[in-house]
Amino acid sequence: MECNKIIHADKERLEKNLKRLSQIGRNQKGGIDRVFGSSTDIEARNWISSLWEKELGSEVTTDAAANLWAHISGTKNLAPIVIGSHHDAVKNGGMYDGALGVMLATEVMQRIKEEGIKLRHPFSIVSFSAEEPNPFNVSTLGSKIVSGKLTKEQLSIIKDESTNVSLKSTLESLGGNLENLDQAVIKYGDIGAFIECHIEQGRNLYDQGISLGAVTEITGIYREKIRILGEANHAGTTLMKYRHDAILTASEICIMLEKAIVDINRNDLVGTVGYISASPNSANIIAGEASLILEIRSTKPKIVKEVLNNLKPKFDEVMNRRKVQIVREIILNQLEVPMDETVRGALISAARAINEPIIELPSMAGHDAAHIAKVAKTGMLFVPSIKGKSHCPDEDTYIGDIEKAANALIQAVLILDKELN
Amino acid sequence: MECNKIIHADKERLEKNLKRLSQIGRNQKGGIDRVFGSSTDIEARNWISSLWEKELGSEVTTDAAANLWAHISGTKNLAPIVIGSHHDAVKNGGMYDGALGVMLATEVMQRIKEEGIKLRHPFSIVSFSAEEPNPFNVSTLGSKIVSGKLTKEQLSIIKDESTNVSLKSTLESLGGNLENLDQAVIKYGDIGAFIECHIEQGRNLYDQGISLGAVTEITGIYREKIRILGEANHAGTTLMKYRHDAILTASEICIMLEKAIVDINRNDLVGTVGYISASPNSANIIAGEASLILEIRSTKPKIVKEVLNNLKPKFDEVMNRRKVQIVREIILNQLEVPMDETVRGALISAARAINEPIIELPSMAGHDAAHIAKVAKTGMLFVPSIKGKSHCPDEDTYIGDIEKAANALIQAVLILDKELN
Repeated sequence: MECNKIIHADKERLEKNLKRLSQIGRNQKGGIDRVFGSSTDIEARNWISSLWEKELGSEVTTDAAANLWAHISGTKNLAPIVIGSHHDAVKNGGMYDGALGVMLATEVMQRIKEEGIKLRHPFSIVSFSAEEPNPFNVSTLGSKIVSGKLTKEQLSIIKDESTNVSLKSTLESLGGNLENLDQAVIKYGDIGAFIECHIEQGRNLYDQGISLGAVTEITGIYREKIRILGEANHAGTTLMKYRHDAILTASEICIMLEKAIVDINRNDLVGTVGYISASPNSANIIAGEASLILEIRSTKPKIVKEVLNNLKPKFDEVMNRRKVQIVREIILNQLEVPMDETVRGALISAARAINEPIIELPSMAGHDAAHIAKVAKTGMLFVPSIKGKSHCPDEDTYIGDIEKAANALIQAVLILDKELN
Repeated sequence: MECNKIIHADKERLEKNLKRLSQIGRNQKGGIDRVFGSSTDIEARNWISSLWEKELGSEVTTDAAANLWAHISGTKNLAPIVIGSHHDAVKNGGMYDGALGVMLATEVMQRIKEEGIKLRHPFSIVSFSAEEPNPFNVSTLGSKIVSGKLTKEQLSIIKDESTNVSLKSTLESLGGNLENLDQAVIKYGDIGAFIECHIEQGRNLYDQGISLGAVTEITGIYREKIRILGEANHAGTTLMKYRHDAILTASEICIMLEKAIVDINRNDLVGTVGYISASPNSANIIAGEASLILEIRSTKPKIVKEVLNNLKPKFDEVMNRRKVQIVREIILNQLEVPMDETVRGALISAARAINEPIIELPSMAGHDAAHIAKVAKTGMLFVPSIKGKSHCPDEDTYIGDIEKAANALIQAVLILDKELN
C-alpha cells in the first residue's frame, strides 16, 4: 500500500533549520528572546515565510490573527490536514518549544513535495501567533482566534499596559487585521485534522527512554489569586503573639498546597505557587499583605476538586489561628481537553510503521492544540525533553528523537489522508 | 528650687503642630508617605524650619547630613543639651513615629523661651535625616553621620539603585554637603546630653496603662539576606519530586524562624521575615530563585546566637532535601546599646516631679538615640502606642500621654541643666 511506504526526513536539513531559527532572538545567556510582537518575532516570521516560499515553493498567507500558513492542494475537495505549532518563545526560553513543531511541519511538507506524493486532502502547515505569555497577557492568541474564542470587541480593547501599544496595531504590524477577524475563524469541519508536534517539557518520555508519545489529553489548569490581609506592624516591638503576619500565612499556604498534591501522588497532578508578593515588603515591618497565585493542573477535574476540598479546612485553620483574612479569587478554570481518537490512532499506527515504540501520555502543559481541538479532530505528538527541562536556555532534545518524530509525522499525515473523508 | 517649678506644655499647640505635620505626605489610605529625599520630605523640612524660625525665633541650621538644628544659647560655656528625633516616615507609616519627638522638642524649646528661663547649658533641638528605610538602604543616616559611623568615601558611592540618583546629590538637594562631613561629626564631650522621646511601638506601656517609660537599652538588630537558588522549570510538566522550588524553600525558612523564636519565648526576642521576592515570579513557572531578609532582635546577643544555632541544622536539612542552595549574608549585626544612667535618672526624677508613674523598659526598635549614645550621654523617653501599632496608618497615641511626656521632658531638661557640668 502506498501509504505504508516509509519516507525519511532529511535530518541534516531539519537540524540546520532548527539551528537557524534558534539564532533569531538568541541572548547572551544562551536563551531565546522571541516574544510576540518583538523585533525578533518579526525577524522569525520573515525567515519562516521566506523558507516556505523558497524551499517549499508555497505561497505563504497571513490570517487576521497574524498566523502564518502555507498550503498545498489535494486531489479531492476535502477539508485540509494541518500540522504546525508556534514560533514565539518565553523570555529567555529554549530553542525547541514551538519552533520544533514549525520546523517539523516544514520538513514534512518538503518531503511530501520532494517525493511527488499527491495527497487526497489539501495539506497546510501553520505557525500560530503569541502562544507564550506576552505583553498583552493573552497566551495562545492565534489558536484562540482561529477557534473563535475571542471576539473583535474583546480584542480591540487589549493593550500592552506598560507601553500603551494596542494589540490591534501590533497584529497589523505583523500582517494581521482585526477587521477581518471572521475570515480567520474556523468552524467544525473546515479542517480535516490537526496535529501539533511538541517537546514534552516533562520527564515521562525521557525517563522511560521512549522517543515518541501520543497525547491522550491536555491538562486542565486551575488558578486562583490568593490575597492575605494581615496587619503591618513594627518588626521589633510587636511580640510574636500579637502578630498577624501575611508572609508567614503565605508560607503556610505554599507548603499546604505542596503537601496536598504530594499526598494524592499522581503523575497527572501538580500544584505550584510561582508568584508571590508582599507589602510593604520591608525588612523591619511585619508584612500586612501578601498575594500569591496558586495553580493546580490535572487531567481529572475530580482530582482538582479533591485537592481544593482538602485545602479548604487548612486555609480556614490558618486564617483563624493567625487572625488574618484569606481572600480567594478563581482567575482561570480551564478544563482538560481530550485528543481525538482517530488522530491518536494515526500517530500510533505511524510509529508502528516506522518501527518505533510510542506511549500514550497526558500533556501537563497547555498548547495551541487545546483550542484547535474544539473545532477539528486534533492530536499531539510528543518528543522527549532532556531531563524534562523547558522554558529555559537548557531546554534540549536529541536530534535522533527529532528525526523519528519527523518520520512518524510524515506517516501520520499519509495515514490520515487515507482514512479521513 | 527653680528647677522644680512645673512648667506645663501647651497641649493644644502641640496637638495642632502634630496634626499639621501629619498632613505632609498623607496618602489616600490615611498613612504618611514621607520617605527621605522625597518631595514630602522636602515639604516637611521647609515647614519645620519655618516653624522653628517663626515660632521659636531660632536660627535653623542644616548640617552636612541634612539634619535640621535649632539652638538657644546658655549662660555658661558648656556642652549643649539636645533633644529631638526624626521627621521622615516609613512608606504608608503613622503620624507619631519620629514626628512626635520633633514636635515635643519644639514645644519644650518654645515653653522654655516663653517662660524666660535662662539655661546654663546651650540647648538644641534636632530632626535627623533618613532614620527610616529609604531608597539608599541606609537607615538612621543622620545620626550615623553625626556619631562618625560613616566616612565620606563610604557615602560617596551610595546611590538609589532604581533611579541611579546618588546619596550625595540627594543630601545636597536637602541642604547637606558630603564635602563638609567632618563638620557634622560629634566627638564625645561635644554634647552634654541627648534625649529622644518616641512612641514605644510595642504594647508594654499600653498593656500596663502607664504613660511614661525610661528606656534601659536599645535592642540589638541582626539581619541576614538569604538567597535561595533552586531551578526554574515548567509548572505543568515538572512532577513534584523533580522540583527545586525556591518559593517553597523560602516558605519553610520563614516558618522555621518563627518556630525558633516562639520556642525560646522571651519578651525581649522577636524574629521576622518582612521582605520576600521570587524570580521569575510567574504563575506558570516554578521559582528558580527567591530572596528574603531574616531579622532577629534581642537585647541579649547570646539569645540571638542561640536562635541562629538552632536554625543552622534546619536550613541544612531543607537545602539537602530540596536540593537547593541557601546563600546567607549578614547585612547588619548591631549590638544592643545601654542608655546612660544620668539621663535615665533625670527622666525618672522628671516623672516624679510631675507626679506621673514611669517604668523602665528596653526598646525593641532601633533609634537615632542608639548612635548618639556612642558619643554622648543619651536617654529615651517612651509614650504608649495604642494597641502597640506602629509603621502603619493606625499608629496612635493618646494626647493625654503626649502632654505628660512634654511636661516630663521640660523637667528632664531642667534637671540635666542643673546636674551636668
